[in-house]
Amino acid sequence: MANKITLPELASFCKKKGFVFQAAEIYGGLAGFFDFGPLGTQLKHNLKDTYRKEFVHKRDNIVEQDGSIITNPKVWKASGHVDNFGDLVLTTTQTKTKLRADHFIEDTLNIPGDALTADDINKLIKEHNLKYNDEDFEEVKDFNLMFNTQVGADTTKTATAYLRPETCQSIFPNFRSVADVSRAKLPFGIVQVGKAFRNEISPRDFIFRCREFEQIEMEYFFHPQTECEALSEKQLQTKIQFLSAENQDNESAQMTEVTISDLLKQKRLNTHHAYWVAEFFNWLNHDIGLNTKNLRIREHTKTELSHYSTATLDIDYQYGMGFKEMLGIANRGDYDLTQHQKHSKSKLEFFDEVTSSKVLPHVIEPSLGVERFMMAVLSEGFTNDEERGNIVLKLEPKVAPFKVAILPLMGKAPLVAKAQEILAELRDEDIITDYDKSGSVGRRYARQDEIGTPYCVTIDFETLEDGELKDTVTIRDRDSTEQKRIAVSDLYITLRKLLKDKSFFSKLE
Amino acid sequence: MANKITLPELASFCKKKGFVFQAAEIYGGLAGFFDFGPLGTQLKHNLKDTYRKEFVHKRDNIVEQDGSIITNPKVWKASGHVDNFGDLVLTTTQTKTKLRADHFIEDTLNIPGDALTADDINKLIKEHNLKYNDEDFEEVKDFNLMFNTQVGADTTKTATAYLRPETCQSIFPNFRSVADVSRAKLPFGIVQVGKAFRNEISPRDFIFRCREFEQIEMEYFFHPQTECEALSEKQLQTKIQFLSAENQDNESAQMTEVTISDLLKQKRLNTHHAYWVAEFFNWLNHDIGLNTKNLRIREHTKTELSHYSTATLDIDYQYGMGFKEMLGIANRGDYDLTQHQKHSKSKLEFFDEVTSSKVLPHVIEPSLGVERFMMAVLSEGFTNDEERGNIVLKLEPKVAPFKVAILPLMGKAPLVAKAQEILAELRDEDIITDYDKSGSVGRRYARQDEIGTPYCVTIDFETLEDGELKDTVTIRDRDSTEQKRIAVSDLYITLRKLLKDKSFFSKLE
Repeated sequence: MANKITLPELASFCKKKGFVFQAAEIYGGLAGFFDFGPLGTQLKHNLKDTYRKEFVHKRDNIVEQDGSIITNPKVWKASGHVDNFGDLVLTTTQTKTKLRADHFIEDTLNIPGDALTADDINKLIKEHNLKYNDEDFEEVKDFNLMFNTQVGADTTKTATAYLRPETCQSIFPNFRSVADVSRAKLPFGIVQVGKAFRNEISPRDFIFRCREFEQIEMEYFFHPQTECEALSEKQLQTKIQFLSAENQDNESAQMTEVTISDLLKQKRLNTHHAYWVAEFFNWLNHDIGLNTKNLRIREHTKTELSHYSTATLDIDYQYGMGFKEMLGIANRGDYDLTQHQKHSKSKLEFFDEVTSSKVLPHVIEPSLGVERFMMAVLSEGFTNDEERGNIVLKLEPKVAPFKVAILPLMGKAPLVAKAQEILAELRDEDIITDYDKSGSVGRRYARQDEIGTPYCVTIDFETLEDGELKDTVTIRDRDSTEQKRIAVSDLYITLRKLLKDKSFFSKLE
Repeated sequence: MANKITLPELASFCKKKGFVFQAAEIYGGLAGFFDFGPLGTQLKHNLKDTYRKEFVHKRDNIVEQDGSIITNPKVWKASGHVDNFGDLVLTTTQTKTKLRADHFIEDTLNIPGDALTADDINKLIKEHNLKYNDEDFEEVKDFNLMFNTQVGADTTKTATAYLRPETCQSIFPNFRSVADVSRAKLPFGIVQVGKAFRNEISPRDFIFRCREFEQIEMEYFFHPQTECEALSEKQLQTKIQFLSAENQDNESAQMTEVTISDLLKQKRLNTHHAYWVAEFFNWLNHDIGLNTKNLRIREHTKTELSHYSTATLDIDYQYGMGFKEMLGIANRGDYDLTQHQKHSKSKLEFFDEVTSSKVLPHVIEPSLGVERFMMAVLSEGFTNDEERGNIVLKLEPKVAPFKVAILPLMGKAPLVAKAQEILAELRDEDIITDYDKSGSVGRRYARQDEIGTPYCVTIDFETLEDGELKDTVTIRDRDSTEQKRIAVSDLYITLRKLLKDKSFFSKLE
């Protein structure tokens, strides 16, 4: 854990390089809201596109939809959010300062706060005589986290509507329509990427707990009487660090190494659930490059489970502040479809061809927070290379904001012209390419290292020494700083290979 | 205009094919809010990505940022939106029904409503004794279109915050930070893509006027004492149908054919403004495939100009309901930076190396509505092909949801295996590919025609007749229905060429 970047370091790095700013910083910001600069914006695009490619475009049974942020408020009544989506709040008796109760207990007593009820908290406050800035607390209160607003011009008739606190509830009401237009058969999934909003009492941990954030959620619908056919032996043997529900009851909170197969034998999840846990764990490790030592799977305890879930496993990442949830994979059963069927009075049952019967599907929901994903990727890649004297952001090529930088060694016209020609070609081929002509090449390499650009292409000295421009360039590997010389005519095809597989660099002559 | 698809036809087509649904339709929807199904979601991605590629990734002096939807409310005080962002509303005396005044006047008296003041409207109501459902009207009132909400748990201290009614105001406060991290020099641009919200009094025209919508806005900052160096002779000679401000004062509202050069000579815009008008007009025509006869440029009249603008030219598209704004290109001068500098007390001046002086840049803003863009692209492509007996959605390959469909002629195992192999290869190369094995090939071609897939690849009879699987396939062109036979080994490279240039199909043997 010692080599991990701390939150203040990460925030400072992100601001300096233009990944993340406070929202409207010149006005002092607004707690829990952030603006993403050019590199942060591109990194977020790449994270989302990488997900889409893997989980939507490569699969025949998963589609994407894009629902509105504000929708008919009956959706939130049906889902239980109007009545149940709250946090417990402590208010001090004099200054009426508000604190999120579970966080206050966690920070003060150093015990897990997630599962505490209002009664538990009132008891603990009394028992330990807890105060805040010498003030006592009022009885703990429930606070609904949904932002609301009024839709329509007529104040006598307006409907209170909500900013969605999670993206998935835009999916359930559309389930039948989307399935029909996609001619879908069970099992199938609907993905949605977009903003969600929660009026957090105390937003904190940089962009980990924001009031406005982005989610990638998949609702995967399956027949509850079927097993997952796609679950492979290889997936079953995936090894993971696991923190079970029962292990969180005692103070040691020990992780154990288990396989997906072990979890199935222990009946902690069904096969569809197991498939998605394995699929995401391996994707985060192999495709995104998160080391398994920074990943763990934590089972939700019984008291902590949401009202809709029969089992939830989080994939936690080891951030600067320790292991915290990045991705949750919940078995929502048929809770949501049942609720929406009841409240909308629309039939949401689905005819299953295999069993020749109508069924209300069950749902596995992998839910990923984009900002948390971004924090993990940046934390993982951040390397203070003391030998080089600069930061090296070791991002996987597929998520790096720029894939390559074109650097003319100096400002001479023929060099610049050749560099511009190469630049235009790569950009035309959809390779996101930076161009930098100012400062020494060493300085420019360092700049690209710091923003995670995996390859630099230099139109360089050797070319000049030949007395005329020959069509060869130097390509430099970010992680090793090794350089190779290749023909311009091979550049595009070489880059395509390198962007898929970094190890190809060592095979270049 | 006769061959254009009407709005009801477009809405019905979009629902049937899963481009657009009402938001949470099973609950009766919510006026002004829409959900995008799988094809609509992918089409929107493609429209935004095509813009990004052309205007951000291909250019060294334009970057993208992604600001929060809710930001510090002082931003909206400074921008003038808290005080000035309203529509005039008519309220009936008995039932208190609310109507947007300018639309009511337009529909009832058939005169342009945009520029009417409250006094004008009160006078017209009196003069023509206008009523609504036999009811009289109260005096016209101003209604602020920003949705607001409360941020924070403490109801005694909460701040009223707003959902942004335009994306650009997240850019101005970040102008200096984004310029600094990008090491930008004037002129340069910042693009933002994202949701905006307006509490429209009467949302209408399908997805043309929504309460929740998406914008792509660019703020292009330049030194007011410079001319645009990028403006080319070719751009100057761009021919456009033009509706001038003065021509809108008389009833005939005649368009004339002019060039950008004419507009400059008539001092209707400066050279930076001219550059972007030409750039977007040509992009919409050449890259997106909108016919110039469906595009016109309309100059805002003096009374209609926003408080921040010295000149605005709209690029209107000829929709089912006639020519309406799709993209506005405004000269915002230094209005916004001046306001934000004053209200934030932060220096927003920029050191310009060319003139060696500090300057508050001026701004040209091309602002594109994504839903309006989508409506234009769908209207343009929609073709009822009576000979074929189905709709053909003639989208440019770069915006089509699927680029290609893989169709095994029948369900025999070797055909399916080969089809799956080709499918996996194309998907691995980031070509978004559909797969369809059910129904006759004719039926499957028709399905792909209707969703705009430019190419179908069939593993077909001829292959079977050879007695074993040979590596050739049939490729079919959506627009001509012509078919050619090519080797599987050439498929990827052929598709890459076809997706860039449709005319390459005729060059295939």
